[in-house]
Amino acid sequence: MAEIVKFVKSLTTPRGRRESGCFLAEGARCVLDSLPHFRVRELFCTAAFAADHPELRGATVVERKMIERMSQQQSPQPVLAVFELPETEPFAYQGRLTLALDAVQDPGNLGTIIRLADWFGITDILAGTGTADAFQPKVVQATMGALARVRVHRVADLAETLSRSGAPVVGTFLDGTDLYRTPLSLSPQPIVVMGNEGNGISPAVEAVVSERLKIPSFPPGRQTSESLNVAMATGIIISEFSRRIYG
Amino acid sequence: MAEIVKFVKSLTTPRGRRESGCFLAEGARCVLDSLPHFRVRELFCTAAFAADHPELRGATVVERKMIERMSQQQSPQPVLAVFELPETEPFAYQGRLTLALDAVQDPGNLGTIIRLADWFGITDILAGTGTADAFQPKVVQATMGALARVRVHRVADLAETLSRSGAPVVGTFLDGTDLYRTPLSLSPQPIVVMGNEGNGISPAVEAVVSERLKIPSFPPGRQTSESLNVAMATGIIISEFSRRIYG
Repeated sequence: MAEIVKFVKSLTTPRGRRESGCFLAEGARCVLDSLPHFRVRELFCTAAFAADHPELRGATVVERKMIERMSQQQSPQPVLAVFELPETEPFAYQGRLTLALDAVQDPGNLGTIIRLADWFGITDILAGTGTADAFQPKVVQATMGALARVRVHRVADLAETLSRSGAPVVGTFLDGTDLYRTPLSLSPQPIVVMGNEGNGISPAVEAVVSERLKIPSFPPGRQTSESLNVAMATGIIISEFSRRIYG
Repeated sequence: MAEIVKFVKSLTTPRGRRESGCFLAEGARCVLDSLPHFRVRELFCTAAFAADHPELRGATVVERKMIERMSQQQSPQPVLAVFELPETEPFAYQGRLTLALDAVQDPGNLGTIIRLADWFGITDILAGTGTADAFQPKVVQATMGALARVRVHRVADLAETLSRSGAPVVGTFLDGTDLYRTPLSLSPQPIVVMGNEGNGISPAVEAVVSERLKIPSFPPGRQTSESLNVAMATGIIISEFSRRIYG
């Protein structure tokens, strides 16, 4: 079993995931949601968990202590799985609302954004260079299973991918127009780009943005030095686009 | 200096804050935003930081090592302050959009919600029993200075406070009506209640809710077992209310 523990721990590093082609998922929600969508390499749970979940036939039943040795969580849960990384299909824009992340670095932000995309029925996210790896354990856990339903496409040159897509590209900038009062591109639905936590959208990507928006602070006209966290800003923008698309 | 280090460290506990009537703030953003709003008890910074910030007259200049000994941050910043807890004024509803938190437990969620309130010009938050303490270091840091502009009122009986306020009280429930399509109470502006991370709104508070809403998932009618994080849900609801109030 020492070999397996070593293997599971290797999945916390980009190199470990690349070399094995696998990633780690923990907890009932994350593992059960992922089972129909990813090929299972290893599946461990406690006897009690197996008894409660007959759908986990084939799981290796182990002592809780064993799971604790493999776990990356502060409070290890009774089930843990190693899945194969999905085949990366090339992104094809089909006129539906899409997210693009221009170097969103924080794993918690990326996880929250993937979970949010799932809620709003967004199935594709473009992840530009500098964006956190969606299959690192912190992101996998933060998505609460949503990673099974949202495809994250890593792209080497986000500006070029956006430009070639032919989609309207929306970004937020300090000098953009008011999100709530601007007529939005809805047909086809746009790709919404969110920028880096500290630096915002990069100049190369800014050059391909066709619609410059901002989330105003309230009451209107109030001077503020504040900013919204990138995940929160994504939620507010996607909510407003969804309202108008389906409203 | 050992006494001071001990004092600063005591502020990480509810008892330490209660007995001293003080709280800890770290980092340029947090400390500088808080200076005009709270009475300073202690203010420490490095010589380099003091040279760059003439407005910090009266700060005690110390070695970086000293700040590291007091800091609660993984990457200590060159400035750290102890402020006096503000006087708790009783909450008085004045017809303006207000947030109420019914046992929002996670400090990160509370910090994000306070920062969000600041962005949308919400100046008062009611914090019911079971809600995290806004003056614990994790929350103070997560607010990024917004705590200086948003009053958090701790209330022992949230249901009673809401009921006595006379305000329309809005809450989200699985069987609520679509946030985007429902006529909303805007005059007077409502108090929006957000529930606990795991259990939602408590029965006692639910009994005083006058408007039951939900954030729909998209595309409309899609079955989903998913949920949104409470901070994200707050952002989406407050954005929609602000859009309608000022739009």
